[in-house]
Amino acid sequence: MGEVEQAGGRRRARGGGGAARRASRGAVSFETARFIERKIPNLEMLNEEALEIIEANAETVLEEIGVMFVENPAALQRWRDAGADVRGERVHIPRGLARELVKTAPSKFTQIARNRARDVEIGGNTLVLAPVYGPPFVHDLAGGRRYGTMADFEKFVKLGYMSKWLHHSGGTVCEPTDVPVNKRHLDMLYAHMSLSDKPYMGSVTDPSRAVDSIEMSKILFGADVVENNTVMTSLININSPLTFDGVMMGALEQYAAAGQASIISPFIVGGAMAPVSVAGTLTQCLAEGLAGVAYSQLVRAGSPAIMGAMVTSIDMNSGAPTFGTPEASQITYGMGQLTRRLGLPFRSSGSFTGSKLPDAQAGYETANSLNMGLLSGVNFMLHACGWLEGGLAASPEKFVLDADQLGILHRMAEGVAVDEGAQAMDALREVGPGGHFLGCAHTQDNYQTAFWRTGVLDYKPYETWTDEGSRSSYELAAAKVQRMLDDYQQPHLDPATDEALRAYMAEKKASMPDAFI
Amino acid sequence: MGEVEQAGGRRRARGGGGAARRASRGAVSFETARFIERKIPNLEMLNEEALEIIEANAETVLEEIGVMFVENPAALQRWRDAGADVRGERVHIPRGLARELVKTAPSKFTQIARNRARDVEIGGNTLVLAPVYGPPFVHDLAGGRRYGTMADFEKFVKLGYMSKWLHHSGGTVCEPTDVPVNKRHLDMLYAHMSLSDKPYMGSVTDPSRAVDSIEMSKILFGADVVENNTVMTSLININSPLTFDGVMMGALEQYAAAGQASIISPFIVGGAMAPVSVAGTLTQCLAEGLAGVAYSQLVRAGSPAIMGAMVTSIDMNSGAPTFGTPEASQITYGMGQLTRRLGLPFRSSGSFTGSKLPDAQAGYETANSLNMGLLSGVNFMLHACGWLEGGLAASPEKFVLDADQLGILHRMAEGVAVDEGAQAMDALREVGPGGHFLGCAHTQDNYQTAFWRTGVLDYKPYETWTDEGSRSSYELAAAKVQRMLDDYQQPHLDPATDEALRAYMAEKKASMPDAFI
Repeated sequence: MGEVEQAGGRRRARGGGGAARRASRGAVSFETARFIERKIPNLEMLNEEALEIIEANAETVLEEIGVMFVENPAALQRWRDAGADVRGERVHIPRGLARELVKTAPSKFTQIARNRARDVEIGGNTLVLAPVYGPPFVHDLAGGRRYGTMADFEKFVKLGYMSKWLHHSGGTVCEPTDVPVNKRHLDMLYAHMSLSDKPYMGSVTDPSRAVDSIEMSKILFGADVVENNTVMTSLININSPLTFDGVMMGALEQYAAAGQASIISPFIVGGAMAPVSVAGTLTQCLAEGLAGVAYSQLVRAGSPAIMGAMVTSIDMNSGAPTFGTPEASQITYGMGQLTRRLGLPFRSSGSFTGSKLPDAQAGYETANSLNMGLLSGVNFMLHACGWLEGGLAASPEKFVLDADQLGILHRMAEGVAVDEGAQAMDALREVGPGGHFLGCAHTQDNYQTAFWRTGVLDYKPYETWTDEGSRSSYELAAAKVQRMLDDYQQPHLDPATDEALRAYMAEKKASMPDAFI
Repeated sequence: MGEVEQAGGRRRARGGGGAARRASRGAVSFETARFIERKIPNLEMLNEEALEIIEANAETVLEEIGVMFVENPAALQRWRDAGADVRGERVHIPRGLARELVKTAPSKFTQIARNRARDVEIGGNTLVLAPVYGPPFVHDLAGGRRYGTMADFEKFVKLGYMSKWLHHSGGTVCEPTDVPVNKRHLDMLYAHMSLSDKPYMGSVTDPSRAVDSIEMSKILFGADVVENNTVMTSLININSPLTFDGVMMGALEQYAAAGQASIISPFIVGGAMAPVSVAGTLTQCLAEGLAGVAYSQLVRAGSPAIMGAMVTSIDMNSGAPTFGTPEASQITYGMGQLTRRLGLPFRSSGSFTGSKLPDAQAGYETANSLNMGLLSGVNFMLHACGWLEGGLAASPEKFVLDADQLGILHRMAEGVAVDEGAQAMDALREVGPGGHFLGCAHTQDNYQTAFWRTGVLDYKPYETWTDEGSRSSYELAAAKVQRMLDDYQQPHLDPATDEALRAYMAEKKASMPDAFI
């Protein structure tokens, strides 16, 4: 289970504190699993007829209804040049044009990390896991629910760095609301760059912040590296239904022009921003994804783009969004099929829950979403851990509980070995009827790697569990969060690079007044 | 969501108590969903080569290693007559013989219920859901963990009767430890027969108790009905590895001879009762299932049998069983494929968890198992709700939380509709870019059935949730359990039948001294 668990084991044996621990072991590089490469099939939920109906309807939507590119004359001109019928801000895309344009987007690309062992490949049979994105609140066992701060943000980046099954440091792991809204992207980027060495996401809340993200990345990686590689994958939401706003598109334009990757996906609460039916929502998502990815290729052909959907359904009584529901799963399965047919990388979301606490509801809903993500062929799973309360809150305890479950996805994706060792015929012969396998040679040779092992869940006997305080998994996770933060060690960053990053931030911050809205 | 929710709604509106409620509404028949018929594909985890290797190895196990039928001379004679090589109590089954024998077992059968609207079909593309089986303890929010009693047992039967998504009343929903061990099967059967009208399971702990189960069923249904129909599906565990004990086989013989169904499946903690590898465990499970189902056909060709496996893995450090793990899922997926290739109905387990509480761990592990059960092609899912602490405890709160999640399986299995209404092109045209769908005609026409709706989970705004006491799903479930028990109404049972059942029980109980071990 890597250094995290080993460090924990040493700590318990010695009973020493965090400082003694750090001193005793020197620099520790926390183990990160390689991104997942599936050796199992995807679940093909929709049949060929259904897929063809939805594809034909999406083309009808693009041609007849069209999509809006608002406050963005340059985008309208690009569409006009490409052969679309532009009326006001509405772009009617002739049948087949978007489908033709997306062909220049790569089916797979590599996003590099400053620790190159942590590069990720996105597309084909891969699955890359990234943490929660966007919550304004943080909710933990000790402090309850409150607005997120930069200190919280840094805590989540550290937890992400130390989570073995998490491949990506993510982006806005929580909103650091104590930093001015026009400056916080600088602190967030610096936290990802300095407190972790995993790949990260850039800012999208203003085109100028996308520029800052690219500039800081050039300081971190070197300008030539950024010019020749994808070093950021950033989140471009579509304003559903069928609307692409100027700010998000402005960020997309910066990233695409710089060869940086964008996730282009609608954020849909079904029944509100899309039709109340699965097939109707799939039609709209496909139309929106096609238009968005096609536009990225109009900006720069060959720039990497990920298609997908972030979909929840709605409780039609209260209007509240719901999570981990069957309709959301069906949409994700279908969108995976439609995206694969376009040869594009596919994105979904992981640790979805509407619960206010990391309780049973959170467990059910998150596991439903994680299983669906694995089996629907997702290539980039955002919100893979840490999401709570419909995305309004990030939870450190749920972060480590979810991140532990991500290990299950790794093992499931490996498929079933049937080599001679795995067949275990010698063990069956050795043990025979009525015996037991604990002591046999095959078990002794294989037990250490045979089964996936949790790093946080409890399987102790009831009596031991009560002796230790009858802790729920929420409480066990809180203890694990503290252990991880105690054990955290910052990965080495070249001091000159660090200095240059700080100087860039200081100059930028000095150039503008604080804004809080 | 049926009568359960409607009754709840009326209660809240009036603010009356349980008695007033019951008086005001007269007899209520609680709605039960029809068993699931899958319209989606199964996930085929193993490829053809892997399946063929495992099938060949299972034949080798049966022929070379053999299986034990202990303390059962009649079984050894049946095997000898069928052409097996019997040495002492060990039966060596020639390659292909078991596979040939199982062909007389039906690929699908109907288990009837006394309310014929609740008959279930088991096999092919169906999925029948049955509750937790076997826990000696009950653990609830109010009372903590304690040994189960007959009062607890009756409570679970009532909850099962009222759970819309549960098709089957099950068997030993908890052990009623306050009733002598040699008499409790009578009370358990009577509870299922009188407090519910769903199909149920018979006793397997002694051949004489299987006879009692059949006799009481004849009173309930009429002797001719039992002779011509399957009215019980009972759980025959194999004593892994490769051993069939005389007591369980004695019960199987009674049921098979009476044309009643048996689930014949190993209960395996991987690494202890089977090899530590997935392929090795699958080989053993297939060999055991083949031998067991073949034996049921030697007793009476054509008697219904369900094959399957109840598999968990083991924490190789502590020796504790673990649940909801990827290896258990892989084994279940593989066993589903192997069982389908034999044309037999397939059994798995649902609400698996090792957690001591209905907390996040319980939620993750249960959802992992439920998703796997749906997608691995299970026909009969035992333990679909209510299981806690590795099966040592039954939890009423988890029962209703799990039973709620079973609704998701129903919806997922329906697949995605692509009829004209579902395509929703009119809605997309009506709303257009930038609009919203809440008020459009398509939404108004479809919102009531568009999305699966929970009956227990919480999606309220944070402020409402805190005003209502910041309840976890454990607490919400406890409140729902109480509402359901308050609303419970016994289904009608013919008084003469009831009297005859009671007389049979009284006579049986008077015929033997109490035994508690």
